[in-house]
Amino acid sequence: MAVVAPLLVAGRWRAARDHAGSFRAVDPASGQAIGPEFPRNGAADLEEAVAAAADAATVLAAAEPARVAAFLDAYAVAIDTDAEALVELAHAETALPAPTRLRGNELPRTSSQLRQAARAAREYAWTQPAIDTAAGLRSHFAPLGKPVLIFGPNNFPFAFNAVSGGDFAAAIAARNPVIAKAHPSHPATSRRLAEHAHRAAAEAGLPPATVQLLYDFEPAFGLDLAGDARLGAIAFTGSRAGGLALKQAADRAGIPFYGELSSLNPVFLLPGALAERGEALAEEFAASCLLGSGQFCTNPGLVAVPPGAAGDAFVAAAQARFAAATPMLLLSRAVLASLERSLAALCKGGATPLCGGTASGEGVRYAPTLLQVAADDFLRAAHVLQTEAFGPASLLVRCANLAQMQAVARALEGQLTGTIYRAVGGSDDALWQTLAAVLRPRVGRLIANKMPTGVLVSPAQQHGGPYPAATHPGFTAVGLPASIHRFAALHAYDNVPDALLPSELRDENPGGIVRRIDGHSTLADVGAAP
Amino acid sequence: MAVVAPLLVAGRWRAARDHAGSFRAVDPASGQAIGPEFPRNGAADLEEAVAAAADAATVLAAAEPARVAAFLDAYAVAIDTDAEALVELAHAETALPAPTRLRGNELPRTSSQLRQAARAAREYAWTQPAIDTAAGLRSHFAPLGKPVLIFGPNNFPFAFNAVSGGDFAAAIAARNPVIAKAHPSHPATSRRLAEHAHRAAAEAGLPPATVQLLYDFEPAFGLDLAGDARLGAIAFTGSRAGGLALKQAADRAGIPFYGELSSLNPVFLLPGALAERGEALAEEFAASCLLGSGQFCTNPGLVAVPPGAAGDAFVAAAQARFAAATPMLLLSRAVLASLERSLAALCKGGATPLCGGTASGEGVRYAPTLLQVAADDFLRAAHVLQTEAFGPASLLVRCANLAQMQAVARALEGQLTGTIYRAVGGSDDALWQTLAAVLRPRVGRLIANKMPTGVLVSPAQQHGGPYPAATHPGFTAVGLPASIHRFAALHAYDNVPDALLPSELRDENPGGIVRRIDGHSTLADVGAAP
Repeated sequence: MAVVAPLLVAGRWRAARDHAGSFRAVDPASGQAIGPEFPRNGAADLEEAVAAAADAATVLAAAEPARVAAFLDAYAVAIDTDAEALVELAHAETALPAPTRLRGNELPRTSSQLRQAARAAREYAWTQPAIDTAAGLRSHFAPLGKPVLIFGPNNFPFAFNAVSGGDFAAAIAARNPVIAKAHPSHPATSRRLAEHAHRAAAEAGLPPATVQLLYDFEPAFGLDLAGDARLGAIAFTGSRAGGLALKQAADRAGIPFYGELSSLNPVFLLPGALAERGEALAEEFAASCLLGSGQFCTNPGLVAVPPGAAGDAFVAAAQARFAAATPMLLLSRAVLASLERSLAALCKGGATPLCGGTASGEGVRYAPTLLQVAADDFLRAAHVLQTEAFGPASLLVRCANLAQMQAVARALEGQLTGTIYRAVGGSDDALWQTLAAVLRPRVGRLIANKMPTGVLVSPAQQHGGPYPAATHPGFTAVGLPASIHRFAALHAYDNVPDALLPSELRDENPGGIVRRIDGHSTLADVGAAP
Repeated sequence: MAVVAPLLVAGRWRAARDHAGSFRAVDPASGQAIGPEFPRNGAADLEEAVAAAADAATVLAAAEPARVAAFLDAYAVAIDTDAEALVELAHAETALPAPTRLRGNELPRTSSQLRQAARAAREYAWTQPAIDTAAGLRSHFAPLGKPVLIFGPNNFPFAFNAVSGGDFAAAIAARNPVIAKAHPSHPATSRRLAEHAHRAAAEAGLPPATVQLLYDFEPAFGLDLAGDARLGAIAFTGSRAGGLALKQAADRAGIPFYGELSSLNPVFLLPGALAERGEALAEEFAASCLLGSGQFCTNPGLVAVPPGAAGDAFVAAAQARFAAATPMLLLSRAVLASLERSLAALCKGGATPLCGGTASGEGVRYAPTLLQVAADDFLRAAHVLQTEAFGPASLLVRCANLAQMQAVARALEGQLTGTIYRAVGGSDDALWQTLAAVLRPRVGRLIANKMPTGVLVSPAQQHGGPYPAATHPGFTAVGLPASIHRFAALHAYDNVPDALLPSELRDENPGGIVRRIDGHSTLADVGAAP
């Protein structure tokens, strides 16, 4: 048997017990396998991981928030300190641009996210303590007391990595252990991150199984794992088919499943905006759609174009930009295969390619691809024409009139984002109102005059949305402290004496936590003069 | 065909279109059918209800919160004004005590709950506006834009009625229309409530299909309905088997399902408490368990009793009280049949009856029933011995030592509540800490020295808990504004100009709404000096 990389289970790095084969990362630029062999885990490894995490959950739930915060802060420092090596690994495994994307953007976003989670933990910002003095009731959001299983996606080796990303930061901030199922397209990056996490957790005095790392397993094992009632919650970012299969297993076991599945992020161009700055909008659209080879969950995958010369000019300008761009590196052969399948489905559904549509060059590359379809045809096959083509591709829906634009909005499934471009001068605002009323309940984030690809880590963010873009419309995967609520249980205490309460629910409030006492937000102690 | 009562669909009271049979209410005291025939609805009625609700949802989402609040307030007044007639109907259909329970307690609780929901709507208390000025992001909780389907239980004809209870108040406060599936054991009560609701909604200018009422349908239609993707959420209070079947249908369609299923509400008696006041605890337990014939979701269905003379004395005192009580009226023959099935399952699992165990007398009555089992035996068959026996019944688990008490706690499934009785003097507090650590993650509300049956409508309430007592540990069915969050979507606005934002997210805050601006709670306008 070949020597394979160790996994992190129950507090130590060890060889897989019953691995079912192994795999290597692939450099998308060359198409060649790189780095060591990594194990595909078997049932014994998964069982040990869940059992260890369940034990750790009890300890962690009782830990001081400051301890968890210290871990998150130290982990952030370790990532920043080791940035060069991490970026080198991630670049080799994903072909994402090293200086601009990985070093300049994603890595600092990741450590900043961990620090924001540390702060939320330290300040009890997510716990929302409520005290009803007359009723003798006190409540707050608390750890689940069970582990969180996280499935990371292929497209963010740091910021959404199961062992370092937003789900990880949120689950840990709520003092739940994490079983990280890293994406198999960047195993060495995930391993190095997990080394930092494991060390920082140990130094902060957290239980050894606070962070565990698995690389890959057969789908059947994944379904068994997702249905394991010892889990407290599951977070998944990835493909819709995979996510829905796991969700079904989790649903049956009563485990909250937070999936961020796929989204077209429709963009609607109102006539006034096009008249004002059509050429600039084409530039903005092409830049957003081709950024990172289009491999974002918020990539603009559908653009509703109004009729007339301005619409035609927009299409021509966008097409010129797509056609002029060179074939783009994709994250993996799996992404390429999925993109080809999706584009074929779109064409079969009635879309016509304007440019691109071909794999080409050394490594894993695909030509930027623009398709179009008449709104009439879109409306006739709205389900299949909402197939997500993950990569540098987008579908232009040519509307014959503004009523069709609204009909397109009405036919949309749930989306992470919806964008409307309006005239800065205000001439589109009546149209905005009508269209936004249709779009609003169908999207998580409604955007004006900006492409959807930027997703700031900010408290008012909503990176989620109605099904099937996400699996619950009330939660967000990005933005602290809101994202932590996915991993929290609401705990009430009834008639419990002060000394036996959790510290943030006691009469005295020395830590200056914002609490709702008898319906009013306050920093005061219970019983203090108002 | 017999004349059957009308249903409320699409804004009018009309005969069922395709009803599959009909049914009448039964007076549990006499066992005789009373009142008119009510229709069991067929597919055409359900389809019309969903279509009408989906249209109403769009209108309602755009309505002023003050309008919804006016409806809820007017409905509360109508219920209070019509109290005598409502209580008479409900008493006839449920046999619940008219003056004490229905008139003195449940009806005022119901109108108070509607008023609290009105206040939450008017004050935007549930919307949690957040504004990040630098990021240009603003978010709040908003209506789902889709209808809420509510299944009411048999045991609260007013306070949990699908057309007047806590779920109804919360769904309407978030400006979602309600399709109420009233419980078929009290159809005339539900009909009269719906008449008030419909009138009040019309007077407040809300869309005609804001409130709709269905009485009953075949399970297969219920599953189709629960899987209808036009729904925004489903709330269910009732039996575990029925709830889980509906949940599965909802899960497949990606519809958030909030089930409040069943719970044993375990009570742990610590030795110091028993030594201090064993006789009083037996009295408290019997009173709580037999209140309302034991037909509460928070009925104490399991009591862990410590070893020794004090434990024996508690059991003897409780047994004497149960044995002395006369057979108790149940809500329906279905409740009686279910109670008999559950008690048979408990006995088969190893429990022994101490008293009761028989139906008797005129109408639907059952003798108060106390069972016991040794903790060893409980632990060997912990799943079957956690069968809920809904009615005047409870299982005493006799622990041979304190470690067994903990093991019993560890074997518990998710519960709405968990109670620990401790010595007021504090001698049990070390034991409390150990036991509470085990119990805490398994229950929604942790109670000290008080029986679980009282569930105050108060902001810090948690009437929910880990699966399978409830279907999501982060939500509550009782307590405003928290219960509203089940029926809300998180909506972000990115770069949207002030004039195009919802009023509570604009720069100015004339309504005095508490908002988080750049992470700080404030009543100020955006840009005001801090």
